[in-house]
Amino acid sequence: MADEKGPGHSRRRERSRQAIFAATRDLVAEGPYEKVTVEAIAARAGVGKQTIYRRWPSKSSVVFAALLALSEEADGQPPALPDTGDLRADLSLVMRATVEEFADPSFDRLIRALTTEIANDAALAAEYREKLARPLAEAKEARLRSAQEAGQLDADADLGLVLEVLYAPLFQRWLHRSGPLSAAYADSLVDAALRAFGPRAGVKPPAGRTAG
Amino acid sequence: MADEKGPGHSRRRERSRQAIFAATRDLVAEGPYEKVTVEAIAARAGVGKQTIYRRWPSKSSVVFAALLALSEEADGQPPALPDTGDLRADLSLVMRATVEEFADPSFDRLIRALTTEIANDAALAAEYREKLARPLAEAKEARLRSAQEAGQLDADADLGLVLEVLYAPLFQRWLHRSGPLSAAYADSLVDAALRAFGPRAGVKPPAGRTAG
Repeated sequence: MADEKGPGHSRRRERSRQAIFAATRDLVAEGPYEKVTVEAIAARAGVGKQTIYRRWPSKSSVVFAALLALSEEADGQPPALPDTGDLRADLSLVMRATVEEFADPSFDRLIRALTTEIANDAALAAEYREKLARPLAEAKEARLRSAQEAGQLDADADLGLVLEVLYAPLFQRWLHRSGPLSAAYADSLVDAALRAFGPRAGVKPPAGRTAG
Repeated sequence: MADEKGPGHSRRRERSRQAIFAATRDLVAEGPYEKVTVEAIAARAGVGKQTIYRRWPSKSSVVFAALLALSEEADGQPPALPDTGDLRADLSLVMRATVEEFADPSFDRLIRALTTEIANDAALAAEYREKLARPLAEAKEARLRSAQEAGQLDADADLGLVLEVLYAPLFQRWLHRSGPLSAAYADSLVDAALRAFGPRAGVKPPAGRTAG
């Protein structure tokens, strides 16, 4: 589509998109969130506010797009988890990285603002699930499925529930600021999930179930 | 203090307090939350807005007080969990009740509004922890400690972490509307927590650890 107007247009469009996202992230990081407006974003990015409204209907949707772009920029690939064959090591790596991300002040502000919007906006919550949470969850589930096939997780384990047990405590601790976000904490969640959903060696299997 | 002005004053004060809380809960339930103001609460409760401001500095603090009063009204006692000696049954009862509470639309609106405020207001988050989350967590931990002493939980289990694994997935699923809040889900969390933190009979202990 953009190419119909030539490569120059496409480049300018991408440049303005990046300027809008950078301005949004800066303004959110500076806070308070109520003071972040589409007008302020446009002024900071050096574009007209219609340039923003043509592509995003509201402040919350441009904030969300700016967050989304952050994970795109990181690698440009669909997300995937490391798979060295050592489930504990791979999960520990990923959980420690997630803990670090949440402990980063500028990410903290952005995701806190978005969490606020999502809690009260069912449409944005759906977009968040579709564009960010679900692709990430699928990448994580793929790693867990490979572990399950290798017999490192119980054959009956609900992989969605495994992810909830891994990530929800971290998310809640961050949201409520109710405890330290440390590498040791990340590892304690990995331990808990592996004990809850690991193969039940030495534990009496449920009636009627044969060894998988 | 209130008694210095006589029992009539104290009764009137309590009546206006209850009227303010009822008005707050009604207005929040009607939504949207941005439209709930101290002025609107005062008008609905039939009191002057100074009556509110004398006791609560902001909208968020009166909303929080209204939520807190709800759990006071329920029994008037400090919270305690059932202790029949059957940990799984007791946790299942409590988790199913919590799931039902979150699935109740008027509670949903109130706690969603408060979650929004808490996410962005560190002082309110501290008040929430102190007055609501901590007493509840202590009641839950007391029940877990009794189970731990009875050998139904691992002697090394971190009871705070057990609570996070039980409640955080439920909270996140509710906040993100990412799955059904059902009795079966409540039970699956109890199962996961008991597998993760139950006594490690028959499971090979980590290297260097002696049987506790």
